[in-house]
Amino acid sequence: MRNFDEHNITDEVVAKVGQGDNPRVRQISQSLVRHLHDFIRDVEPSFEEWEAAIRFLTETGAMCSDTRQEFILLSDTLGASMLVDAINHRLAGNATETTVLGPFYVDNPPALELGSDISGDHEGTPMLVRGSVASSTGEPLAGAVVDTWHSDDEGYYDVQHYDQGGGVSLRARFRTDADGRFRFWSIVPKYYPIPDDGPVGRMLRQQGRHPYRPAHVHFMIGAPGHEKLVTHVFVAGDEYIDSDVVFGVKDSLIRELSHHPAGTAPDGRTLESDYAILDYDFVLSPKPA
Amino acid sequence: MRNFDEHNITDEVVAKVGQGDNPRVRQISQSLVRHLHDFIRDVEPSFEEWEAAIRFLTETGAMCSDTRQEFILLSDTLGASMLVDAINHRLAGNATETTVLGPFYVDNPPALELGSDISGDHEGTPMLVRGSVASSTGEPLAGAVVDTWHSDDEGYYDVQHYDQGGGVSLRARFRTDADGRFRFWSIVPKYYPIPDDGPVGRMLRQQGRHPYRPAHVHFMIGAPGHEKLVTHVFVAGDEYIDSDVVFGVKDSLIRELSHHPAGTAPDGRTLESDYAILDYDFVLSPKPA
Repeated sequence: MRNFDEHNITDEVVAKVGQGDNPRVRQISQSLVRHLHDFIRDVEPSFEEWEAAIRFLTETGAMCSDTRQEFILLSDTLGASMLVDAINHRLAGNATETTVLGPFYVDNPPALELGSDISGDHEGTPMLVRGSVASSTGEPLAGAVVDTWHSDDEGYYDVQHYDQGGGVSLRARFRTDADGRFRFWSIVPKYYPIPDDGPVGRMLRQQGRHPYRPAHVHFMIGAPGHEKLVTHVFVAGDEYIDSDVVFGVKDSLIRELSHHPAGTAPDGRTLESDYAILDYDFVLSPKPA
Repeated sequence: MRNFDEHNITDEVVAKVGQGDNPRVRQISQSLVRHLHDFIRDVEPSFEEWEAAIRFLTETGAMCSDTRQEFILLSDTLGASMLVDAINHRLAGNATETTVLGPFYVDNPPALELGSDISGDHEGTPMLVRGSVASSTGEPLAGAVVDTWHSDDEGYYDVQHYDQGGGVSLRARFRTDADGRFRFWSIVPKYYPIPDDGPVGRMLRQQGRHPYRPAHVHFMIGAPGHEKLVTHVFVAGDEYIDSDVVFGVKDSLIRELSHHPAGTAPDGRTLESDYAILDYDFVLSPKPA
């Protein structure tokens, strides 16, 4: 075939990308072509605009490194990540709601004892995080793997400081006790801007958007026979709770911090300053039989 | 806003990306979100599939360098480049038809005298390329800038050999003479695969496609008061003329090579081997007043 014009090219490309053996590759390729071409027909980009699009993607790629995932930021800020999340959690039942993974998860975080303090040398208000993990059928899940990570009180994750010699902090892996419970100490997180010194930051500014996410603590929780849970707990009252740049907030994931004066905390630790407690009880969906 | 699900998230993201001052940025951003979300709703990617999509884009970015533009290859092989080309050339009239720029153009190629041989030390069948540049109103365009580039007879462009110490060859800039004519010597090009050792090559294999483009010579031609022309001349009879991997072939851009025995060529050069002649007369559109 030759002599393609704006009217006949799409059908030809759809036919061409559908020649592989794998039906799912065929379906995704053909849908991608149809929607990409519809987008182009809709906005009718000039050459300069299409070159700018190519340049944007190229710069987004150039921004990616072991500690920076600009394409995840792009997916997150265009609402794509939360849409994929929603589509994959239609039958959550009474399980804890999910939200985006984000770009800052690190595989195999340090495994620590329950009650450990993960704040490293970061300053901030001490925070005791307590919770439980249960199946949606009600039993506590002992030995569940609880990965947690969050930003420091200036809004940076540890990985963002690796290139300045920073080590691992504000992230860890715990295992729930015999009652399915876990606890650890950290510092109260704060709202923060997603990394906005790259193409995605430029896009946000051109779209008239702020780059902020309300304060939250990430959790990824796994237990045998259950769906892996990827979620956050958001701190109630944050000024960005209603305008999360990645569209990730759900009411069921918001919790009030309780605030306490210096003294002995419920786990026996003595605090010389005011501290806070964050409680959340997680529920995992059993895997389909 | 919070508590987004697959039904209400798109309207919210469309509203958020439309807050900037520039109406074109607003239009493109909002259309992108609607089509991206429609694509996701259509194929309902699993998390693993969405991660694979992020990884594909990341690897495509990592493949890009000063001499490799994997995102242009992606745009070309998905038919997007030809669609953008078609949309931007609706009113071509009798002007020469256009086709994709491709990823191998280099700004400011070496300016050479008419009649120069650009083949460098490449082996192949000598080819005299002759042509003219005229306005669609009929006048010859003297002093028009004619950039040309093509692959060697193994299918590689010079830029693909830069990292092995290769220099500039098979590309040059000419200026038409007082009659709007140009001529140069090179070698007969051959069909070739687009660079397929990266993510786009993997995509093509999964889609059951070959990576070949039929033999062609690129031209980018500019003259004052006229639209810049970006096109190729394709060699008639190529085995891939009906299955160009980037959908770029148009009948009006195909020419038969004339073949000649060793001897004196029309420009006075003495050839010790058989040679070919490629003729093409280009017509540029005047710019709108």
